[in-house]
Amino acid sequence: MDSLFKTVQESKDLPLSEKVANQISDLIKEQNIAVGDRLPNEFELAEKLNVGRGTIREAVKILVARNCLEIRRGKGTFVTAALGKVEDPLGFEYIKDKLKLSEELYEIRVHMEPWISSLAAQRIQEDEKAELMRRCEAVEAKIHAGEDHYEEDVAFHHYIAQCTHNNVLSEFIPIITYSVNLFTRDKDPILLETTLTYHRAIAEAICANDSEAAEKSMLEHILGNLVIIKKLKNVHADQQTEV
Amino acid sequence: MDSLFKTVQESKDLPLSEKVANQISDLIKEQNIAVGDRLPNEFELAEKLNVGRGTIREAVKILVARNCLEIRRGKGTFVTAALGKVEDPLGFEYIKDKLKLSEELYEIRVHMEPWISSLAAQRIQEDEKAELMRRCEAVEAKIHAGEDHYEEDVAFHHYIAQCTHNNVLSEFIPIITYSVNLFTRDKDPILLETTLTYHRAIAEAICANDSEAAEKSMLEHILGNLVIIKKLKNVHADQQTEV
Repeated sequence: MDSLFKTVQESKDLPLSEKVANQISDLIKEQNIAVGDRLPNEFELAEKLNVGRGTIREAVKILVARNCLEIRRGKGTFVTAALGKVEDPLGFEYIKDKLKLSEELYEIRVHMEPWISSLAAQRIQEDEKAELMRRCEAVEAKIHAGEDHYEEDVAFHHYIAQCTHNNVLSEFIPIITYSVNLFTRDKDPILLETTLTYHRAIAEAICANDSEAAEKSMLEHILGNLVIIKKLKNVHADQQTEV
Repeated sequence: MDSLFKTVQESKDLPLSEKVANQISDLIKEQNIAVGDRLPNEFELAEKLNVGRGTIREAVKILVARNCLEIRRGKGTFVTAALGKVEDPLGFEYIKDKLKLSEELYEIRVHMEPWISSLAAQRIQEDEKAELMRRCEAVEAKIHAGEDHYEEDVAFHHYIAQCTHNNVLSEFIPIITYSVNLFTRDKDPILLETTLTYHRAIAEAICANDSEAAEKSMLEHILGNLVIIKKLKNVHADQQTEV
């Protein structure tokens, strides 16, 4: 079975510190060093990989920047929970046309999230239902308090994806909901009102294992947001023109 | 319009080099320094950001590790084409259960790629059609020569996504086709034969702007692969048990 899993080792002409960073990264994988575990110290690593401690230090910095390791002062170097995942994996931050980006993300959300919602309704475990309702209520509480509900909103959509028990799908959610961050910080009353209604409908459909209703409510939720956001954009664009 | 786009500035307690790395990253965005452009030199950056050159050097290393900058010896520091995108953004390399990972990725491919294929058929530009056929033929050439066609295969699927003109979708392809890398390096003759047939059917349907046929061929292609790969896995699993 092993041969199936072998990844291609590209022997690029990398600087030594990069090579050593890759070796340490392989070591983490091979020795099953788990998330939260402490990395062997500089001396051990230098000896094991047959390089100087300065190179180990450089390599560790590279892995910190890659989100694989974190240095806790006075405690050592640890394998991070993110383990190689990055906050903005597709570099959205650097995309200049945020309007086009948001349209692209919404096109993907419209195709994926209703499907994710229907899978969640089919696969949610009994003990996950209370947590889903709790996340739904966390959004409601923020909206009722007149506070920003962005983080709770993403957490709600994220938990639905977690209920599909497809880990990759659940990784996709923070990426495709990046668009929420771009436009919904405006507290448009209609946007808030429909969020309340649809989130509850989605959560209840999933908890009732009603995949059809879960899919339909999510589709209406996202399409509805899209219509409202398009209106908001036009208003903003008009205000820009008037000024 | 500007207020809509403002991202939240989180003022975490970061080390100085990380802060400066973020400042340089902001500078790239604000000053519209484009891909391939040379970064201002250490002296200028140190003066502009009011820190020492050592800190600038540290910060540049962090941005190199983040795939934002590359150092070309004797030439200076340049903004990379990848600009913040990373090779394995979701850290698949570190996932131990590759079998489950591959099943999760295939579930997503079955849902997304037929849709992507139908969008491509609707949106492909006339001048992209020759390139699509060229990529199709590149896979055929490799297969006929008995050589590994992995890279050409991913490039073919990737180009289809590019024809949707949704940049985010096209970024997703290398992520969800990661699974190809895991299992199809086995040169199963049936797998190769169906790849030839379906790739051509997909390419021709897209070039004919026939979105229904494009969707259907892609679905059959991926479902077909899935069946063959499941068989291969069982054979391998049996061999493992026998030993």
